[in-house]
Amino acid sequence: MRYELYYWPSIQGRGEYVRLALEEAGADYVDVARQRGVPAMMRMMEEGAAPPFAPPFLKAGKFVIGQTANILFYLGARHALAPTTEAGRLWLHQLQLTITDFVLEAHDTHHPLGPSLYYEDQKAEAKKRTREFWKERVPKYLGYFECLSAKNRGTWVTGRKVTYVDLSLFQLVAGLRYAFPRRMKAFEAKIPKLCELHDRVAARPKIAAYLASDRRIPFNEDGIFRHYKALDV
Amino acid sequence: MRYELYYWPSIQGRGEYVRLALEEAGADYVDVARQRGVPAMMRMMEEGAAPPFAPPFLKAGKFVIGQTANILFYLGARHALAPTTEAGRLWLHQLQLTITDFVLEAHDTHHPLGPSLYYEDQKAEAKKRTREFWKERVPKYLGYFECLSAKNRGTWVTGRKVTYVDLSLFQLVAGLRYAFPRRMKAFEAKIPKLCELHDRVAARPKIAAYLASDRRIPFNEDGIFRHYKALDV
Repeated sequence: MRYELYYWPSIQGRGEYVRLALEEAGADYVDVARQRGVPAMMRMMEEGAAPPFAPPFLKAGKFVIGQTANILFYLGARHALAPTTEAGRLWLHQLQLTITDFVLEAHDTHHPLGPSLYYEDQKAEAKKRTREFWKERVPKYLGYFECLSAKNRGTWVTGRKVTYVDLSLFQLVAGLRYAFPRRMKAFEAKIPKLCELHDRVAARPKIAAYLASDRRIPFNEDGIFRHYKALDV
Repeated sequence: MRYELYYWPSIQGRGEYVRLALEEAGADYVDVARQRGVPAMMRMMEEGAAPPFAPPFLKAGKFVIGQTANILFYLGARHALAPTTEAGRLWLHQLQLTITDFVLEAHDTHHPLGPSLYYEDQKAEAKKRTREFWKERVPKYLGYFECLSAKNRGTWVTGRKVTYVDLSLFQLVAGLRYAFPRRMKAFEAKIPKLCELHDRVAARPKIAAYLASDRRIPFNEDGIFRHYKALDV
């Protein structure tokens, strides 16, 4: 089966967590809006009895699955990127939903007044929110995942097998390094295990090939992780 | 089996979506922090190999399940509050995750600069974010659910059987009415089906009994939906 991934064609954004899972799985997929244009994606959101609220969504045969963590829950079970037990899958999904929360908070550093206004219209507020983000939220979230990594002593965050959560944690570290190089450099000593995990994910053959390909869209200032000098002090 | 729900004892908050599902299911549960105090909850977050990141979490036998939507995914399957097919369950979960996103945006109306600062320290920003919330976000999210209700012509949002998503939509309408009575009053003409759905949920015998009991914590200004006059213009 060839999957169809629907997501904005010019950013990593939330779609990137799905792209990383599809690539690690070696799955056959088409990145629809990149290959056939955005109108093909918009049509899917306007048709049928069960339209997705927003990208990303994945067409898998006759299934159309929306919400990043939901897509990963589905893919994880089919491509050995999740445990086989119900308890293991719920635990992994719980971690992914915590990552989802963090991603939204990362987005809100540059959009504290809401996603419908431009960054340029909320720069002062963005500075305040970013200060809180680094003072309180990054230590809380990343400290949590660092602690889990230390606790289970496995190669990966939940044990001896790589999962979609490891791929997503790679993306968090990469994204924070891109958006906040100075702040992140000062912070990394507190998360040595996550930094090692980032490198182990990046070195996996299929991920390394993906990152070197033009399928990996570069970070930019339309995505979730944006580099604004004013916020990286 | 007696479930143990762990959530803050003085607010509805995110725990309320779980409470509503447990009540509608007629499940045997203890609201741990209300009945045994907050330290009993905090201990659970500090122990074991798989501690939850934050409340709410549910202990179900030896499972400990965190993240509201994840808990509902688990309960829905066991208490006939979700479809029986995989496609149906993923669709329902997708809707719940969209509700999760909306709940966070509702919270950010009074905390645009982040959850670690007081409302009183971000009132001006809260006014701006609330304006955007009502101008752009409420119409987008509630319009989506209104549209789904209209499309399937069922009694409930996904068809002929009540699900945990219906219970959560009840809570959204109730919460917006509490927090923004003036704004919501002006808006309700645009979401007649959601308002009907709210009433149908409230009239269900187990939900009605719950709402009339002291198990239902009143809305207040520590929860997600807070009534601040300055934001309801």
